[in-house]
Amino acid sequence: MTKRWKIVIEYNGTNYAGFQRQPDIATVQGEIETALKKFSNQNIEITVAGRTDSGVHAWGQVAHFDLDYKTASGLPRDITGYELAKAINAHLLPQPISIIDAEEVADDFHARFSAKQKTYCYRIINRPYRLGLNQNLAWWVKRPLNVEAMQDAAQILIGQHDFTTFRDSECQAKSPVRTLDSIHIDTTSITNGQEILFTVSGMSFLHHMVRNIVGTLSYVGEGKFTKQDVIDALEARDRTKGGPTAPADGLYLVSIDY
Amino acid sequence: MTKRWKIVIEYNGTNYAGFQRQPDIATVQGEIETALKKFSNQNIEITVAGRTDSGVHAWGQVAHFDLDYKTASGLPRDITGYELAKAINAHLLPQPISIIDAEEVADDFHARFSAKQKTYCYRIINRPYRLGLNQNLAWWVKRPLNVEAMQDAAQILIGQHDFTTFRDSECQAKSPVRTLDSIHIDTTSITNGQEILFTVSGMSFLHHMVRNIVGTLSYVGEGKFTKQDVIDALEARDRTKGGPTAPADGLYLVSIDY
Repeated sequence: MTKRWKIVIEYNGTNYAGFQRQPDIATVQGEIETALKKFSNQNIEITVAGRTDSGVHAWGQVAHFDLDYKTASGLPRDITGYELAKAINAHLLPQPISIIDAEEVADDFHARFSAKQKTYCYRIINRPYRLGLNQNLAWWVKRPLNVEAMQDAAQILIGQHDFTTFRDSECQAKSPVRTLDSIHIDTTSITNGQEILFTVSGMSFLHHMVRNIVGTLSYVGEGKFTKQDVIDALEARDRTKGGPTAPADGLYLVSIDY
Repeated sequence: MTKRWKIVIEYNGTNYAGFQRQPDIATVQGEIETALKKFSNQNIEITVAGRTDSGVHAWGQVAHFDLDYKTASGLPRDITGYELAKAINAHLLPQPISIIDAEEVADDFHARFSAKQKTYCYRIINRPYRLGLNQNLAWWVKRPLNVEAMQDAAQILIGQHDFTTFRDSECQAKSPVRTLDSIHIDTTSITNGQEILFTVSGMSFLHHMVRNIVGTLSYVGEGKFTKQDVIDALEARDRTKGGPTAPADGLYLVSIDY
């Protein structure tokens, strides 16, 4: 008997070469599959909703895998999601990766193809002094950013567009057309500075799309780009017309809706 | 010419044996003094507002030191606070310690003795699954906590009391009497759980006082202690009558008012 499981994964991506398994190098997928092997005595491959690059974090990454109860020695058939998550987590210790939910799903559930919406957050800390506590967990932007100008310019990206300008040159997606459902920019005061939090939702994203959007909007915040420059950049369908790629450190895969 | 400087320090305390300088072991004070030496060519001792234990973090620790402009080779006399902070930070790289403010103060300013109020925060993440992203940055409490009961019980600690029950056995303060100005407990929903944030203010605190208060209130949250038990524990003036010491990971020195 084989059952399909959906797991929700939280991780600090700082010390991993991204999500995807690679030989001889620590990746989030590699660590989870090693833990699954220890737990089940099976070679289990997990299928992820959206790969993340090295240094990118997740509050709620999603993956699925099939567990064969015949070959798994001593695995109780009525194992609950809580027990399964706990067992995998025990083998993940002390790494900064945690399974924060597990549930049995139908055989046709697919972490990537069944996803209806993905939400990412991007954290900027805007202050003159470098990061101490949030090192690797946010992007330090030194020059003061005009948040209102960024909010205003962000609106033009909402909806269906050809996002070639915001797409990494190595992106393998067939089409550069994507639909951005929403983009919110919130601010909080922190000790001696301001935290600027971008929340971006859509069905799917191109490679580096969120980081390129944030980098381009940071140009607006600095006054290097006007709103019209962002419109022109989008219409140019040319990566070189956009702003820089914001660093991986500030990016969080927050949740995936099915 | 000697000038006194006040600096505000942010740090992740995870990999340091506390604030205070110790031989042959990394401490926050040791790292800052090493950076000051590189920057000024002087052996400068810093005086801190409140030492923190190993694993405790700070958003806004404060220290002062005297800079002798005669012996410091090439140090401009009109160096600004921003320039000074930036110069020290350059020598602190890549450590998770950052000087986030520096200002010249009067000769009688004392980081510890001039302090009027200190504010600490304590972060609990309350969920069944262990921490991934917030490893070392919060206390993971597995059993559901009743936040209202904790809030209610916390009120009896406000004001002037003999805090012997909440004082570490190695505390060296002369008197166990302290005045707690306020204690707030706020909650936020996070992915698959709840973050519970304690904010505690007072003129000064005994060793482990905040962690012992949080540990005792966690007993209330779990239903192990009633409000009356907290009243009895406080009145007993006996550490063994209080709850456990909450781990260092969740504690943040947030700010010091002068």
